[in-house]
Amino acid sequence: MQTLKSFVRGEWVAGSGSPAELVNPATEEVLATATSAGIGMASALSFARDVGGPALRRLTFAERGELLSKMSHAVHEQREALIELAIANGGNTRSDAKFDIDGATATLMAYADLGKELGDTRFLLDGAPAELSGPRLSGQHLRLPRHGVAVHIGAFNFPAWGWAEKAACALLAGMPVLTKPATATALLAHRTAQLVVEAQILPAGAFSLLCGSAGDLLDHVGWHDVVAFTGGSSTGRTIRSGERVLREGVRVNVEADSLNAAVLLPGADDSTFAAFLRDVERDMVQKTGQKCTAIRRVLVPASELSRVRDALCERLAGVTIGNPALPEVRMGPVATRTQQRDVGAGVSALLADAQVVFGDPELVRPVGVAEGKGFFVPLLLLEARDAMAARAVHSHEVFGPVATLLPYDGTVEQASAIVRAGDGGLVTTIYGDERDELAQLVEAIAPWHGRLVVVDKRIADKSLPPGTVMPQLLHGGPGRSGGGEELGGVRGMALYQQRTAVQGNGPLISKLLA
Amino acid sequence: MQTLKSFVRGEWVAGSGSPAELVNPATEEVLATATSAGIGMASALSFARDVGGPALRRLTFAERGELLSKMSHAVHEQREALIELAIANGGNTRSDAKFDIDGATATLMAYADLGKELGDTRFLLDGAPAELSGPRLSGQHLRLPRHGVAVHIGAFNFPAWGWAEKAACALLAGMPVLTKPATATALLAHRTAQLVVEAQILPAGAFSLLCGSAGDLLDHVGWHDVVAFTGGSSTGRTIRSGERVLREGVRVNVEADSLNAAVLLPGADDSTFAAFLRDVERDMVQKTGQKCTAIRRVLVPASELSRVRDALCERLAGVTIGNPALPEVRMGPVATRTQQRDVGAGVSALLADAQVVFGDPELVRPVGVAEGKGFFVPLLLLEARDAMAARAVHSHEVFGPVATLLPYDGTVEQASAIVRAGDGGLVTTIYGDERDELAQLVEAIAPWHGRLVVVDKRIADKSLPPGTVMPQLLHGGPGRSGGGEELGGVRGMALYQQRTAVQGNGPLISKLLA
Repeated sequence: MQTLKSFVRGEWVAGSGSPAELVNPATEEVLATATSAGIGMASALSFARDVGGPALRRLTFAERGELLSKMSHAVHEQREALIELAIANGGNTRSDAKFDIDGATATLMAYADLGKELGDTRFLLDGAPAELSGPRLSGQHLRLPRHGVAVHIGAFNFPAWGWAEKAACALLAGMPVLTKPATATALLAHRTAQLVVEAQILPAGAFSLLCGSAGDLLDHVGWHDVVAFTGGSSTGRTIRSGERVLREGVRVNVEADSLNAAVLLPGADDSTFAAFLRDVERDMVQKTGQKCTAIRRVLVPASELSRVRDALCERLAGVTIGNPALPEVRMGPVATRTQQRDVGAGVSALLADAQVVFGDPELVRPVGVAEGKGFFVPLLLLEARDAMAARAVHSHEVFGPVATLLPYDGTVEQASAIVRAGDGGLVTTIYGDERDELAQLVEAIAPWHGRLVVVDKRIADKSLPPGTVMPQLLHGGPGRSGGGEELGGVRGMALYQQRTAVQGNGPLISKLLA
Repeated sequence: MQTLKSFVRGEWVAGSGSPAELVNPATEEVLATATSAGIGMASALSFARDVGGPALRRLTFAERGELLSKMSHAVHEQREALIELAIANGGNTRSDAKFDIDGATATLMAYADLGKELGDTRFLLDGAPAELSGPRLSGQHLRLPRHGVAVHIGAFNFPAWGWAEKAACALLAGMPVLTKPATATALLAHRTAQLVVEAQILPAGAFSLLCGSAGDLLDHVGWHDVVAFTGGSSTGRTIRSGERVLREGVRVNVEADSLNAAVLLPGADDSTFAAFLRDVERDMVQKTGQKCTAIRRVLVPASELSRVRDALCERLAGVTIGNPALPEVRMGPVATRTQQRDVGAGVSALLADAQVVFGDPELVRPVGVAEGKGFFVPLLLLEARDAMAARAVHSHEVFGPVATLLPYDGTVEQASAIVRAGDGGLVTTIYGDERDELAQLVEAIAPWHGRLVVVDKRIADKSLPPGTVMPQLLHGGPGRSGGGEELGGVRGMALYQQRTAVQGNGPLISKLLA
C-alpha cells in the first residue's frame, strides 16, 4: 500500500507518526496512507521562500506562462490513469473525474496563455500613468510579487482543479507555492503534483506539496506570505484568527460556504426553463452535490411550482446511485464517513423548514457495492413551506445531493430578499427573459455574490453551468463565503503581489519599468 | 467651554459620563471636552446602514461627485477660521494647518472630479468583457457598493485631511460613513464635519460623526460593513483581532506604522542633492514630524556622509521651535503629553544604535510659552554607527521630529537591504540620476512599499514631497504599515464595493448594465 510522501526542500520526504488512511468511499478499501508529522514546516517554507522565490521572480510573465503550459501538459498526458484514481479515491463517476482533471489542465493553460499575453516583462502595470502636476510629474501603479510563499490549503472535493487553479495564479504572479490538499482524497492531488515534479518543469523551491495534516505550518508564516484556503467557514475563521496570522498581518483568502441560488423568473421562455431544469439536476447530482458552487436553493414562482416539482422529480428518478466504477452509475458516494454523517444531520436540520418531495432521507440503495459499505447518501429534493421563514435553508449548507425548492410570489423584491437571506455566496444563477426584471435583480443581489450567471433564451442551450468556474471570471464571494477573490484572469494574481505607486518624472519612470 | 457633540441618527447628540479634555498642546489650556458614552452605537450604525445607504446607492457617480464638491467648498469657505482651530488644538504652525485643511479640500475635490468622470451610472465596470466561448457568451466584472457602513477611525495628526480622504472614497463608492476622529485633536475634525452637516449637503444617514471613544462600536459591525483605521500598529492588530470582526469576516483596512526611508544614490546631480536635503528637513520639521509618511531613515553613501550631515545641521539650526501661534515659529509641540513621552522613550531606544549629530535629547527651549508648559520635543538628527545592525532604527517609529542618518557603501544591494530592514512601509524616496541603479532599486524595494517617489535632476525643483499624499496614488503599505490600500483614484473605492462577475449573453449583459 502506498504511503504518500511530501515534496519539500526539493525532495520527497516521508512523515513519521501515525498516518491517516485514504479509502475508496464506495467500498471502504484502504488505498494509501499519509502523514506530515516531523517533516519540518519552517524549513519547508524557508526553502520555498529563499530558493523558489528568487528563481521565479527572475522570470518574465511569458516564461512563467511557459512553465504553466508544461504543467498542464504533464497532467493531461496521464488523464486516463488520473481518472481511475479519482474514481477510486474520490467516489467520482468518470464524468465527475474528468470535470476535476480537465478543470485543472484548462485553468493551468488559461494562465499559461495569460502569461504569454503579459509578455516579456516582470512588471505588471496597473492602469495608465496618473498625471500629478503638468505632463512631466506623474505616477504609475505597478504590481510585483511578494517575497514570501503562497500557502494553499485545499478542499477534498476537487483534488486536482483545487490546487492547480491556486497554483496557476500564484506562479504566474511570481510566488512559490506550498500546497496542502485535503488528506481524504489526496491520492489524485499527490499524483498530479508528482507528475509536475517528475517532469522537472519548475525551478527548485517553486513548488512544494504537503501530504497529511497542516500541523504547525501557519505558526511559521510572515507578512510576505499569503494563505489561500478553500473549505468550511469555521476552518476559515480559525485560520484568520491564528495568532501568527494576526500578529504578522498575513494576507488570507478564504473561499468557504455558500447557499447558491437558482432563480426562475416569471415569463421565462421554454428554452430558458429547460436550461433551469438541466442546471438544477446537474448541480444536485454532479460530484454527488459536493461542489462549493452547487445550487442549493431553487427559487420558483408559486405559479410554476408544481410544473417545476414534477419535471425535477421525473429527472431525478432516472439517476442511478452506486459504485462509480460502474458505467451505468450517475452518482457515487460522498467522500468520507464524516461527510456522510454531516449530510444526514444537515438534512434533518432542513426538514424543520421543508418537506421531502423526492427521495427518502432514510434510504439509499447503491448498486455494485457490498451491503452496508460505502459513504452513500440519498438524492433529495425538498420544498420549503415558507421561503422567507425557512431559516435553516438559508443558513445551513448541506454538502451533498440535496436542494430545496423555495416558492415565491414572482416579484424581484421577494426573489432578492430570499436570495439575500443566504448572507453572501459564490454564485447565483438567474433564468429569465424580461430585461427590466433581470436588470433589477442583478443590481439587487450583486453585492451578495462574487458571480452571477444570467441565462436567457438566446444562450440557454449553450450557457455554461454555474459550477463551471471559469479562469477568466472571479471565484469567491462575500459574507458566508469568506470574502475571497480568486481567478478572474489577472485579478486573481493580485493576492500574490504588492501594488506600488511609483511617482516622479513620468518619462523616466516609463523607462525604468520598460 | 465647548462640549463636542456627535452627529448620529441625523441629529447632534451629547454623550454622558466623564469627558476627555482637548487642550492647546503649546499652552495646555483646555479648549473643549468630548465623550461618546451612551450615544448608542448600534442604532447609530443601523441608521447609517438603513437610511444613508439606500439614499447614496440611488445616486449616480456624477451625483455623488457633486456632493463631494459641495463638501469641499463648505470646508474651504471657512479656511481661515479652521486654520486658527488647527493652530490652537493641533500644535500646528499656520503652514502645518494649511497642509491639513487644504489636503482635505483638495482630496474631496479630486474625488468630485472622478465622480464627474465616472458619469451618470451606478455601475462601476471593472475591465472589459471576457470572452468565454464564442462572441456571445462572456463575463463582465462590475463593482457595486456594499450595503453596510464605512466605519472610519482616524489618527490625531491630520484631523481634517484624515477623515475627508476616507469619506471621499467611501461616499463616491456609495457607502455611508461613520467617522471617529482621534479625541485629542478633534476640534478641527468636529468643526469641518459640522460645516458639512450644517450645509445640508448629504442625504440623511450618509454621514455620521462620533466624538469621543469608539466604545463598543466594533461589537456592532457585520460583513457588509468596512472598517478603515489609521494609527498605531498595535491598535490596528486589536481591531483586526476583534471577536465580531473575525466572526463576521468584516473587511478591515489598516494604515499604520512606517519607517519611511530617503535614499541618496551616488552620482546625484546637485539639484537632486538639494531636493534631498529640502525633503529631509521638511519631513523632520513639518507637523513636528507627526506624519505617517515622514522620512525617518536617511540612507547616505558613506562618501557623502559628512557633506550631508553638515548641510542638514546647518538647515536645522535655523528652525525656531515654540508656540505655533507666533509667525516666526516653524515647529510647534507634539499633540499630546503621551506623544511627548513616547518621543522621549523612542529617542532613548534609538540611541542604543545611534548618536546625536544635531540637537539635544534633553533640551528644548520653545519660544512664546510659559516656562515648563506645552508638549515640546527637541528637533534631533541622529546617526547610526552601523546601518544594518541598527535594529532599533529599523523597528521603532519615533513619531516626532527625529531622523537617523544611515551610511551605506553606495551599492543598490546594501541600500535595498537597509530599506527592507524596516519590514514594510508607506513610502520611500529615491534621489539619483543613474538610470540602471534607479531601476534596480525600484524593483528591489517596491514589494516593501505602497509608494515610491523617484527624484531626478529633471524634476528635482518641482517634485512633490513624499508626505504629500496625492489622491491619484495609493496610500498604504505592506507589513509594518498594516497592508492597507487607500486613495489611488478609483482603486481606493474598491474597499467599499463588492466586485461581481456577471456571466451570460454578452450583448444582453451590456444592456442590463447600461
